[in-house]
Amino acid sequence: MENTSDNWKFKGNKELNSASAITVRGALNALMSNLNASDERAAIPLGHGDPSAFPCFRTTTVADDAICDSVRSAKFNSYSPTVGILPARRAVADYLSQDLPYKLSPDDVYLTLGCTQAIEVILTVLSSPGANILLPRPGFPYYEARAAFCNLEVRHFDLLPEKGWEVDFDSVEALADKNTVAMVIINPGNPCGSVYSYEHLEKVAKMAKKLGIIVIADEVYDHLAFGSKPFVPMGVFGSSVPVVTLGSISKRWIVPGWRLGWLVTNDPNGILRKSGIVDCIIAFLNVSADPVTFIQGALPQILEKTKEDFFSKIKTILRQAADICYEKIKEIPCIECPQKPEGSMFVMVKLDTSLLDGIDNDMDFCLSLASEESVIVLPGICVGLRNWLRITFAIEPASLEDGLRRIKSFYERHSKKK
Amino acid sequence: MENTSDNWKFKGNKELNSASAITVRGALNALMSNLNASDERAAIPLGHGDPSAFPCFRTTTVADDAICDSVRSAKFNSYSPTVGILPARRAVADYLSQDLPYKLSPDDVYLTLGCTQAIEVILTVLSSPGANILLPRPGFPYYEARAAFCNLEVRHFDLLPEKGWEVDFDSVEALADKNTVAMVIINPGNPCGSVYSYEHLEKVAKMAKKLGIIVIADEVYDHLAFGSKPFVPMGVFGSSVPVVTLGSISKRWIVPGWRLGWLVTNDPNGILRKSGIVDCIIAFLNVSADPVTFIQGALPQILEKTKEDFFSKIKTILRQAADICYEKIKEIPCIECPQKPEGSMFVMVKLDTSLLDGIDNDMDFCLSLASEESVIVLPGICVGLRNWLRITFAIEPASLEDGLRRIKSFYERHSKKK
Repeated sequence: MENTSDNWKFKGNKELNSASAITVRGALNALMSNLNASDERAAIPLGHGDPSAFPCFRTTTVADDAICDSVRSAKFNSYSPTVGILPARRAVADYLSQDLPYKLSPDDVYLTLGCTQAIEVILTVLSSPGANILLPRPGFPYYEARAAFCNLEVRHFDLLPEKGWEVDFDSVEALADKNTVAMVIINPGNPCGSVYSYEHLEKVAKMAKKLGIIVIADEVYDHLAFGSKPFVPMGVFGSSVPVVTLGSISKRWIVPGWRLGWLVTNDPNGILRKSGIVDCIIAFLNVSADPVTFIQGALPQILEKTKEDFFSKIKTILRQAADICYEKIKEIPCIECPQKPEGSMFVMVKLDTSLLDGIDNDMDFCLSLASEESVIVLPGICVGLRNWLRITFAIEPASLEDGLRRIKSFYERHSKKK
Repeated sequence: MENTSDNWKFKGNKELNSASAITVRGALNALMSNLNASDERAAIPLGHGDPSAFPCFRTTTVADDAICDSVRSAKFNSYSPTVGILPARRAVADYLSQDLPYKLSPDDVYLTLGCTQAIEVILTVLSSPGANILLPRPGFPYYEARAAFCNLEVRHFDLLPEKGWEVDFDSVEALADKNTVAMVIINPGNPCGSVYSYEHLEKVAKMAKKLGIIVIADEVYDHLAFGSKPFVPMGVFGSSVPVVTLGSISKRWIVPGWRLGWLVTNDPNGILRKSGIVDCIIAFLNVSADPVTFIQGALPQILEKTKEDFFSKIKTILRQAADICYEKIKEIPCIECPQKPEGSMFVMVKLDTSLLDGIDNDMDFCLSLASEESVIVLPGICVGLRNWLRITFAIEPASLEDGLRRIKSFYERHSKKK
């Protein structure tokens, strides 16, 4: 047996398995492996925020053209500078400054591999020994996974479903202590579909200033607000509290596979620079992979040339889909929606398992739904709320109706007989 | 002073600064900030392995076309699966299998953000408590930076300049203990420009098997062998020892900014799967950014359609540049080249500071060279050898000659008067 050996000494780092299990991706992979291969119907993906496969959500040709121009120019095949190329940083600064009371400089902008890497960067930078961070519940579990990875303690404040998923400031204040370094706000909301008003964000800024902490504003769904409230960037309050804004072209341009995002310091008083945070951001980017250079090269054209009618078309479809979703959910007794979604691509609904036979909790519900109806929905436990569900409405409306019809059949088949 | 506060409690993770300083990028950034802005001559970049800005190193139009076809198809705008899309994984498996005595499966292939992320993945996966890894000296300092990051102990074995930079097996054996999990081989060699023979790689495999450790084969410069020895992939020995091969299109196609690489398990006996390493790789990729989906979509066309004449043109230029470099170095008394480069894009030369006035070491030499002659060369200390230099010959030959001429003038100006 020359080719075998009992002598092998290596083993894998087991902690990785637990960090991975708590991501949306880990959960969806598990659900997808529960799909029934003999179901001839197409699976309906109501689990993740990526409608790019549906023709009605196809990105603008402006973006495709910008990529092809960039790659054919042969100017952007080199390694990128650590922080991103200057024209792309300037384009992001100008794009975001349109909605701010002050002007960002290119030096405020760090280009990242989607918003995901921007999260990785800021959590790693803030993970000094003993530090803790305040995260919303429900939230986006990649924060928890990454925080675990860099030994940053997390504490959860509540979002209030009966108040449009606004921040429960009492819980924020109760959690914070001298080691708290930042709080995270996701607006428009994932997983809740909420859009925060100017007044609410102002309260967030005041609370953070009082506590002496940074606001990390996850605005990956920026501008995807189709209800009564406009999208207001947290950076508007950058003069009273340092705001680190995380964003991306993934959602507004429906190109999550392009992996181009940004981390932006909204900090006209230079507090992040003085405190050494900026140096640490650059140092971490020095040992991190960069976004593709020719996509950075395309970014100015994408941000400047995209027509308003593309954005309004996408918002119209999302509004229509959110309406369908909200109405159809009313017809399914075991789930209840406390708040009609006004932004992002998701809605949170409360699951009443007491109406169901043989379904004990949200995970159970989602696993059975995948195997019986080929519909993928994210269990609330993945975003921090047991016995809730996160439903994506950002898919082609006909498929969405089909998916919700299947959830209704699932309910009818499993409903408790009186 | 409403807008200021002494109350801010956050601070950055200082360890990041030291991890970043030891990368090639960190060192080159420092050197570039030492360039003299009033020097009207163009700076000559002999510091990094990225010749893509030079017209003679322009990538093939086959690759540009593949990107544009892929992005215009609108099939690859979605998030990528954790491990990469199947057609791209299959294309890599087929491409690498051409040089192996067995056939790789797509399941052996994990797509990564260049070879850099592949290094991050395998080091993180192997970083179980107490583990150590054997790295070559001189080597590629990103390994050290990433190992520091995941608390993986590193131990350095020597490469022997007088023996064509082959591995010093005595030092390998002396370093290894029961906690050693892997050794890293970079072939073709960075920083040495060496190409290992079949016989030498066979000895590496035997040593690793004896020690019960994995061979991590960094083959980012695969096929860039232009001397007497052909490139032999370490995976050839995958039946006797588990080999994890790291590669990329960055170097062979001269597109480092495209960030597409791979981690491949060359392990026909399934040892890495049985030991849990494969599960950990997948788990870590679940919490990591993915390579751009449409570049993955272009990969089959790039790997299958690129013509041999593109590769041979690049090798011819590299051979010619290596010859120029080797000959011109002979004319500069303070540096000596122990081994004519036969592969990759670099050569290591020994610096004799005793011939120079006011230059104490390699870092000194490089800083002064940058400021006086606008030539960037990497100090050997960055790759583990004090008072050596790593010189890149992979630039347009005319610029290379100019750069070496400037180094010669620098020597003449600083040489010790007898």
